[in-house]
Amino acid sequence: MSPLETINLADKLSQFSDHWNPRIVAKYNGNEVRITKLKGDFTWHSHADTDELFFVIEGALDIEFRDGVRHLERGEMIVVPKGVEHRPFCEDECHIMFMDREGEPNTGVNPSTRTRETLEAI
Amino acid sequence: MSPLETINLADKLSQFSDHWNPRIVAKYNGNEVRITKLKGDFTWHSHADTDELFFVIEGALDIEFRDGVRHLERGEMIVVPKGVEHRPFCEDECHIMFMDREGEPNTGVNPSTRTRETLEAI
Repeated sequence: MSPLETINLADKLSQFSDHWNPRIVAKYNGNEVRITKLKGDFTWHSHADTDELFFVIEGALDIEFRDGVRHLERGEMIVVPKGVEHRPFCEDECHIMFMDREGEPNTGVNPSTRTRETLEAI
Repeated sequence: MSPLETINLADKLSQFSDHWNPRIVAKYNGNEVRITKLKGDFTWHSHADTDELFFVIEGALDIEFRDGVRHLERGEMIVVPKGVEHRPFCEDECHIMFMDREGEPNTGVNPSTRTRETLEAI
């Protein structure tokens, strides 16, 4: 990451193949722009102090909320307000860009087997 | 805009055809997620209190900085740090998503013929 760097998300995504392991590609107003590949189930969690923005780059993403599931195709986004419990999942591999406040754990206030202690910047 | 609404950016972009007139599609941590169609030249400006994130949805965008031009194709993004002068332009129509702190004028601290006093939420 460097100031005024043009960031190609497909190029960045081609640099890794693991799932549920976010990388940081940019910072914006105290938030991190993150990318990750997903496949399978994440764990229920919420973020106490940050909204979370999801944007689908490739594939399709489902997010379960306590009131039902939202389905996102490529080019679709959603903002999960702080405090709202959610659980991302997808049957086939999905690539997303997402945003959290800087340093926010990927599992928020609910540590699980999916928690990543530190995120790499690429 | 409503909480937990899935937002299809192409659908939102199909709802208008004018240029340089941003619409707000979501809010995230005190920032606005905006979309707009561009064609031609914007004016030199900077934002005193907010970084600005640009992401190209369709077409290609050039942004001139005092040290040269950055070229962004579809799927590419850049974060312009607060205080950095810039001037977006594009020969052919371009569709972008971008983010600013809530209420930030589109021309920042440099009002011009491109300034939009209020932005519509769609």
